[in-house]
Amino acid sequence: MKKKNKQPLILLTNDDGVDAKGIRVLLDIAKEFGRVVMVAPAVGRSGMSHAITFNTPLRLKRIYQDPNVEIYRCSGTPADCVKLAQRYLLKNEKIDLLVSGINQGSNTSASTHYSGTVAAAMEGCINGLKAVAFSIVNYSSPFNCDAALEAAKKIIPLLLENDLPKHVCLNVNIPNIPASDIKGYKITRQANNYWIEDMQERKDPMDRPYFWMSGDMYKADKGRDTDQWAVEHNYVSVTPIKSDMTAYEAMEEFKQWKLKKTTKR
Amino acid sequence: MKKKNKQPLILLTNDDGVDAKGIRVLLDIAKEFGRVVMVAPAVGRSGMSHAITFNTPLRLKRIYQDPNVEIYRCSGTPADCVKLAQRYLLKNEKIDLLVSGINQGSNTSASTHYSGTVAAAMEGCINGLKAVAFSIVNYSSPFNCDAALEAAKKIIPLLLENDLPKHVCLNVNIPNIPASDIKGYKITRQANNYWIEDMQERKDPMDRPYFWMSGDMYKADKGRDTDQWAVEHNYVSVTPIKSDMTAYEAMEEFKQWKLKKTTKR
Repeated sequence: MKKKNKQPLILLTNDDGVDAKGIRVLLDIAKEFGRVVMVAPAVGRSGMSHAITFNTPLRLKRIYQDPNVEIYRCSGTPADCVKLAQRYLLKNEKIDLLVSGINQGSNTSASTHYSGTVAAAMEGCINGLKAVAFSIVNYSSPFNCDAALEAAKKIIPLLLENDLPKHVCLNVNIPNIPASDIKGYKITRQANNYWIEDMQERKDPMDRPYFWMSGDMYKADKGRDTDQWAVEHNYVSVTPIKSDMTAYEAMEEFKQWKLKKTTKR
Repeated sequence: MKKKNKQPLILLTNDDGVDAKGIRVLLDIAKEFGRVVMVAPAVGRSGMSHAITFNTPLRLKRIYQDPNVEIYRCSGTPADCVKLAQRYLLKNEKIDLLVSGINQGSNTSASTHYSGTVAAAMEGCINGLKAVAFSIVNYSSPFNCDAALEAAKKIIPLLLENDLPKHVCLNVNIPNIPASDIKGYKITRQANNYWIEDMQERKDPMDRPYFWMSGDMYKADKGRDTDQWAVEHNYVSVTPIKSDMTAYEAMEEFKQWKLKKTTKR
């Protein structure tokens, strides 16, 4: 009993949904390091970013339990999953690590903002948890999990052992190649690349227009120190990201703006 | 004709929906400074953060047009509205400014992450637009728009006249008090405050549990240079925020971690 209580408690979530391959293989890894509580969206919630649900009720259902693993299906977003775990299911326990993923699809550059996987890690980070998001640079099945699993096996224990800087979590992106082809790990910055969307206009059977959004990433950022560069050159990209979005370096400039209060109206 | 073409083009959006009071009063202000194209969610999409829609089709319908103003209702999120405007409706035009809001509800501290209003501005920023989000610190009607309108009248022309630092936009929060009671403007940082959620459990008529998420902001950050401090002390808070979430100050620390590739497996 005593030993069991000392096991690290790992919270696991994702944005591809409770049945996704990525989270299931990550569960097998996480189990090796401690007790795992998995709370994941009932369905895929890719591109949900940091959305939260407060205008409609949330549902939560336990679908599996053994002495070491509990699995819950949640009707909400990835951030909702973290909130329900932290404020309800595990409110009287210390969560030692939040692990999000493995996402099927790259979360580099501007995608860091759109990703539900990254937002789940950020949600933990905002609320004082150590957190990491794992994503594989691939949008179609099959995706090669072995490099991602090797990265997870390396990074999860490091996170359990080490303190993290306050308000910082990790965004890890792994190339979709065999583990043996990975050249190494790079600590990277988020690239300033963005998507150029193709808004494909179609007509429904009632002749009313609708749009499918797709697109390509525009690689404006030529830096060799970025998340994008790393994954394109067969490195695992590890980007420390933070919850504070303040552009400190721009504050002085804005202080020069004529923002005095108008005294007469 | 010539003069008309030289008018600034302002893109207007929000997350409270096309019929919200906040965007309608902002439209009246924006019209004074140029031609306005408003693309807003059909319904309230508060708390949608930077969510985007690529797994279901999007709808877009023009519901108003005069020589100076076009209004579109969009089925998607605030970020979708910006993408449809930039990549479809206005793809051959230069958007001079993106204005998001006026949101009913504070978007300071961690709420910067959850806000659809702020994410819409960030979406423009990522894609090279000058952008600003306006929010009023109030969660229930009626809300006092005159201080927010005075702030918008001051900030919109400054944004049209001045260049912004690259990848930076503005998150403006305005106390819900009469304009005459505003003490002035503060350039602030995002406070490290977060929400402690109350997950209220109820039973539906079929005796199945569901949860309502609500909560209170936990004011962990005692700084007097924050967005939270400013609005609580009757200042308009102007926070420059940036799209790059990299925690540069933490990179060296992570470079010390034992992240070498395992050579033998």
